[in-house]
Amino acid sequence: MGRHRDGRPPATQRAFAIDGLTAGMSTLELSGGHVLGPAFQVRRADLLLDVEAGEIVEIGALEGTGDRRLDCGGALVMPGLVNAHCHVAMTLLRGYADDKPLGAWLEEDIWPAEAALEPADVRAGAELGVLEMLKAGTTAFVDMYFHVSEIADVVRRAGCRARLGHGVVTTNGSRQAAHDDATESLAIAERFDGAADGRIRTAFMPHSLTTVDAWVLEEYVPRAREQGIPIHYHANETHSDVEQCRTERGVAPLAYAHALGVLEPQDFLAHGVHLEAPEVDLLAESGTGVVHCPASNMKLASGMAPIQRLLEAGVTVGLGTDGAASNNDLDMFAEMRAAALLGKIAAGDAGAVAAPETLRMATEGSAATAGLPVGRVEVGGIADLAVVDFETPHLTPTHDHVSQLVYAARASDVRHTICGGSVVMEDRTVRSFDEERVRRRAETAADSLIARAEQ
Amino acid sequence: MGRHRDGRPPATQRAFAIDGLTAGMSTLELSGGHVLGPAFQVRRADLLLDVEAGEIVEIGALEGTGDRRLDCGGALVMPGLVNAHCHVAMTLLRGYADDKPLGAWLEEDIWPAEAALEPADVRAGAELGVLEMLKAGTTAFVDMYFHVSEIADVVRRAGCRARLGHGVVTTNGSRQAAHDDATESLAIAERFDGAADGRIRTAFMPHSLTTVDAWVLEEYVPRAREQGIPIHYHANETHSDVEQCRTERGVAPLAYAHALGVLEPQDFLAHGVHLEAPEVDLLAESGTGVVHCPASNMKLASGMAPIQRLLEAGVTVGLGTDGAASNNDLDMFAEMRAAALLGKIAAGDAGAVAAPETLRMATEGSAATAGLPVGRVEVGGIADLAVVDFETPHLTPTHDHVSQLVYAARASDVRHTICGGSVVMEDRTVRSFDEERVRRRAETAADSLIARAEQ
Repeated sequence: MGRHRDGRPPATQRAFAIDGLTAGMSTLELSGGHVLGPAFQVRRADLLLDVEAGEIVEIGALEGTGDRRLDCGGALVMPGLVNAHCHVAMTLLRGYADDKPLGAWLEEDIWPAEAALEPADVRAGAELGVLEMLKAGTTAFVDMYFHVSEIADVVRRAGCRARLGHGVVTTNGSRQAAHDDATESLAIAERFDGAADGRIRTAFMPHSLTTVDAWVLEEYVPRAREQGIPIHYHANETHSDVEQCRTERGVAPLAYAHALGVLEPQDFLAHGVHLEAPEVDLLAESGTGVVHCPASNMKLASGMAPIQRLLEAGVTVGLGTDGAASNNDLDMFAEMRAAALLGKIAAGDAGAVAAPETLRMATEGSAATAGLPVGRVEVGGIADLAVVDFETPHLTPTHDHVSQLVYAARASDVRHTICGGSVVMEDRTVRSFDEERVRRRAETAADSLIARAEQ
Repeated sequence: MGRHRDGRPPATQRAFAIDGLTAGMSTLELSGGHVLGPAFQVRRADLLLDVEAGEIVEIGALEGTGDRRLDCGGALVMPGLVNAHCHVAMTLLRGYADDKPLGAWLEEDIWPAEAALEPADVRAGAELGVLEMLKAGTTAFVDMYFHVSEIADVVRRAGCRARLGHGVVTTNGSRQAAHDDATESLAIAERFDGAADGRIRTAFMPHSLTTVDAWVLEEYVPRAREQGIPIHYHANETHSDVEQCRTERGVAPLAYAHALGVLEPQDFLAHGVHLEAPEVDLLAESGTGVVHCPASNMKLASGMAPIQRLLEAGVTVGLGTDGAASNNDLDMFAEMRAAALLGKIAAGDAGAVAAPETLRMATEGSAATAGLPVGRVEVGGIADLAVVDFETPHLTPTHDHVSQLVYAARASDVRHTICGGSVVMEDRTVRSFDEERVRRRAETAADSLIARAEQ
């Protein structure tokens, strides 16, 4: 990992290019809107993007400066949302099995279906999920799944950003199968890191602390570490998860994780629903990020993550939808709302997980958790942006833009989505995909998958 | 209340009119879609509506039978959603004060703003709220507020259905003010019941069991009862609510309500978050409906209503958004999702408050709670309908239509909204309102209201 983390020269070097605006640099002007700054201040301003560098080069009154103009009148330019934990191809299983707890749902419905998955299914599901996310203003996501090369190809074509990994599950197979699985996860992480002009990053992804044997983690985590590859896994999701770890390993899950060396600053875990005080301390001290998945945790009745407590302890918290089978969508606006609402119930305090903290979770927090260099709208920053239309009844009147984004805005309010300076969705039309074709392909794949799984 | 409950002859009489289809009856055909039947079975079918009677006269293969045709291809025709507890004009205060508990929020922010409310503000807020609801497939709502004649006029013009009432609060004023307030609530209920061709019904609406003095309820509830007017009020919303009742009245809130005679089958209460077992029994025995407001209960950290327990006890449960200031929208799709997700956490069971029960809550349940003759798609039934577009990435694939409606559909997926056989929204354009004008008027009213309140 000797190169810069997104494969491009650092921002300080590129800053000189601003003077060369007239010397052939291709620019895009986002004009007529308001802008949500890094401290969530809102002001009337246009943005000038350097399309090649994929960066914001100017924010201010720019009427007519850009080579091309994108109308943002009546809209707010905000950071693209970052979905920090997802299994994107599970869109194929959206609504396939609902209203069941995690264990039964996985064993009776999801794992049998996933066992029948073929690469083409994963491609069809990933196309559908990425399309859905781009239409919802999500410009980056973290994904743990299988047939990752298919997902990487979809990300490359879509123009979005992702941290991808192959999920390792070893507790149901042979020792050789475990070696093969972990080896593949490492190989995938090495192969795709920096792909798609640096938009793709990777991680080693053991599925969870309970579904991967200790010896696998002991052997492969150091190898990932040698390569500078971060580790992403599920942890402390359910009560039985925690109990199983206590029974089998004799300690709380994150004490076990700490002993295994998977609590480093670049590592991040999904869920963290059931956490004891020493585990919260471990997270705060280590800098390991936690991805909160409130809708999934509610739908599977896993529990309420103590998000206010994590924020107060200084833990880096991001936000994720989890897979569409336990959500049932990949909508980060709905996820922000769920996080803010559930966070108050969990803390018994209406002031907990307030709107600004929630919006930060879905942008900078997710980006920091996932180790992606995005999440703020600022000069010199990467131009991953969502342009949200505020001229709609349910966002009227606007006393507070941040409140509107968290409590009232919908994915359908996103007018344009921009990633790395490229307009990936304009006026709700995603450029890189034929929406109808993607939908039909996903329907066919889902029908065929279920038929095979239920044979 | 001698007349039929919606001011029209009973369905059995009107049924004969079906034979007279060719004899000048104006019909509308909803063609090309799927239909969600009363048992939530989904089938390919067209619907024929009698526009004058406002009823569904036929469901089946009808290509070309209707005088007019509304394209429902790729969509599902479902019952219009019923928002069973709302303060519609509070849209003006959307996002004005967030992240505060109920008591402080009311006393520091909401009540001072409401004290400055003038009729024109209520009209502007109600127009905005009704517009938002029609665009979200909500065809009927229950409203407790002030300046009710303004709201009634908006409902009349919008073409939707409502049960309206004037909210009575007596604990902060003089005895004479209390008399005046309660008298106005009764007068409003008598004056508007049956208005707008029967689309408007009313109720006597004491604000809550703790904000209205016992003597007021003792004196005015029997008067409402004599007139056949139902009672709607807030109850058991917060812990402190319950404690206050226990301290001041010496009994649990619903025991107090029972003694006052406001637990009749036509009565209904909002919230019911904190309920003891004998109170659940009282609700089940009396047939008094409960309107669940999950988003508001979460946002104000009021608590988690035991909805699965209420359903199992046979209590009639409806669903409501509450006001936009504590939600922050009037979106019944978001509310269904919140209800299904929170219900599982409250019960500690992923099988609790399943998708079909949730959808029933938002349609038939709300209608039964509010005493409105709607909520099912069936021949002879009132044609209050929402047509939901399923040809969109986040509703692909469709393994289960009911799951999609509860867990993944958005208000923006509603293509057409029909109330009493009239198309009130077609292809996302609401006919009765100029959307831009309503938005601008609401913005102006909100600015002026806040300026007056903060003086």
